[in-house]
Amino acid sequence: MILTVTLNTALDLTYRVRSLRPHASHRVSEVVERPGGKGVNVARVLAALGHETTVTGFAGGATGRAMRDQLGDTPGLTDALVPVAGATRRTIAVVDELSGDTTQLNEPGPQIEPTEWGAFLDRYDELLPSASAVALCGSLPPGVPVGAYANLVRAARAAGVPVLLDTSGEPLRRGVAARPDLIKPNADELAELTGSHEPLRATQDARRRGAHAVVASLGAEGLLAVTPEGSWRATPPARMRGNPTGAGDSAVAGLLSGLVEKLPWPDRLTRAVALSAATVRAPAAGEFDPRTFEELLGRISVTGKPSAA
Amino acid sequence: MILTVTLNTALDLTYRVRSLRPHASHRVSEVVERPGGKGVNVARVLAALGHETTVTGFAGGATGRAMRDQLGDTPGLTDALVPVAGATRRTIAVVDELSGDTTQLNEPGPQIEPTEWGAFLDRYDELLPSASAVALCGSLPPGVPVGAYANLVRAARAAGVPVLLDTSGEPLRRGVAARPDLIKPNADELAELTGSHEPLRATQDARRRGAHAVVASLGAEGLLAVTPEGSWRATPPARMRGNPTGAGDSAVAGLLSGLVEKLPWPDRLTRAVALSAATVRAPAAGEFDPRTFEELLGRISVTGKPSAA
Repeated sequence: MILTVTLNTALDLTYRVRSLRPHASHRVSEVVERPGGKGVNVARVLAALGHETTVTGFAGGATGRAMRDQLGDTPGLTDALVPVAGATRRTIAVVDELSGDTTQLNEPGPQIEPTEWGAFLDRYDELLPSASAVALCGSLPPGVPVGAYANLVRAARAAGVPVLLDTSGEPLRRGVAARPDLIKPNADELAELTGSHEPLRATQDARRRGAHAVVASLGAEGLLAVTPEGSWRATPPARMRGNPTGAGDSAVAGLLSGLVEKLPWPDRLTRAVALSAATVRAPAAGEFDPRTFEELLGRISVTGKPSAA
Repeated sequence: MILTVTLNTALDLTYRVRSLRPHASHRVSEVVERPGGKGVNVARVLAALGHETTVTGFAGGATGRAMRDQLGDTPGLTDALVPVAGATRRTIAVVDELSGDTTQLNEPGPQIEPTEWGAFLDRYDELLPSASAVALCGSLPPGVPVGAYANLVRAARAAGVPVLLDTSGEPLRRGVAARPDLIKPNADELAELTGSHEPLRATQDARRRGAHAVVASLGAEGLLAVTPEGSWRATPPARMRGNPTGAGDSAVAGLLSGLVEKLPWPDRLTRAVALSAATVRAPAAGEFDPRTFEELLGRISVTGKPSAA
């Protein structure tokens, strides 16, 4: 199975309102409720691609129960979340009917106690031996040590399990130093990590800091990969209109599934870009439009070359 | 006991953000979660005043469970809510730290099925005989007949239980025609009911439509009461700064507690205005600042006179 780790899971709510105006009162015409957090979105896409996937991280409170009830109903997903005393956070995306734009409100997440962090580490060690790959995704909730991902990267490498890290800020900086197999920063995260706003230079610098391979997501311009096997750029045929939330998580799922299927890099990148674009066309993070995905697979441009042997 | 009916209960969330900007992403720095809906707020204030209070209406889903868990922890409150298949709605108040202003997002509430409405009517009939007064509060969730409050008013009157109605629009119009003992509209609700924006004229007109007594809440200007016993105006000493959410619910609790304690009208109005103002000074609906309440009791101006005998 593929293992995804989401330490700050969420109950994602999407509200539809006519037009959000500060300091006014709004009637919400539609409410959609979904399990969320980056690694949970990645897991949903992996499961839809036919990969048995296990979700771990933390869940607690009424929001955690609601999230787990829905996760349990998803075919191909196994819930290995660790219970905590605090409540799983909510995120709220308020979609304007008039403009289609989204306003985001993110709760901070529960305080994780040291014993709960210890329980998670035990669970992670139990799960690693049966994992073909592991993805470490998203922000850290309060109470989790800032070096958490560095520890989890080292444990995966010690177990011989390929590990992808998708986070930002100090947890990314420390995690990279622990030498993950792959990181997937966006342009902002990459600039914050390396100090450079020039994508190719920043991507190369991120490898020097410890990541074996770096796939930078450049929004509508697709992906830039710098790996031991070579460098490539993969671009979708046109800018997609829709909701970009979750597009990065779908790219992670594309890269990870390509890794466990031992696809060549250009095929992994094609899949990741097509999934990403098909997610922009779907209503929610962790979902993609299968027709758009199939149709795009033949239309992604990949340029670049393998490294000299 | 005093019975409060809240057909559209809520889990009220208060989010603190630095400043709400449409189409941006916001980190919520503080989340407060409370049982809500007008009748639930009324019940919390009544319980804090020392009145045994029973809450009925509907509750369902994970949000309903979270609401009931907290209600069960409130001394003096009895939970007699009727379970439904749909989920209790959330309301979200987003408070700007910079301006102190609030943006409100209200979910619509669950669809109530005919069998669930029938189960509520049975519960209401069971509870009425032991009630010293009943308050019917707030909007109707989808599926509840628009004449619901009219039915509930008639049942209370048939049982000899004084009944207060606090709602708006068509449910208020129909409810008033069923001759409740008291209604407590605000200026907008009163204008919508009567077509008049002149408070005294509109209040008198509302009585002609069927309400035995009308107490109009005029925001910072206090209350205007037109009753079979006389007419009065009760005014707080100064405009209160703070959050007006729930001030009307606290006024209802003041009027209802004064009714069951058989206080003269000027004393009921004094209590209602003082509670209302003390709620503006408290952080959340259904709560009031006891020091402000005690201090204001001696400072409310009541003018008016009893009817000629």
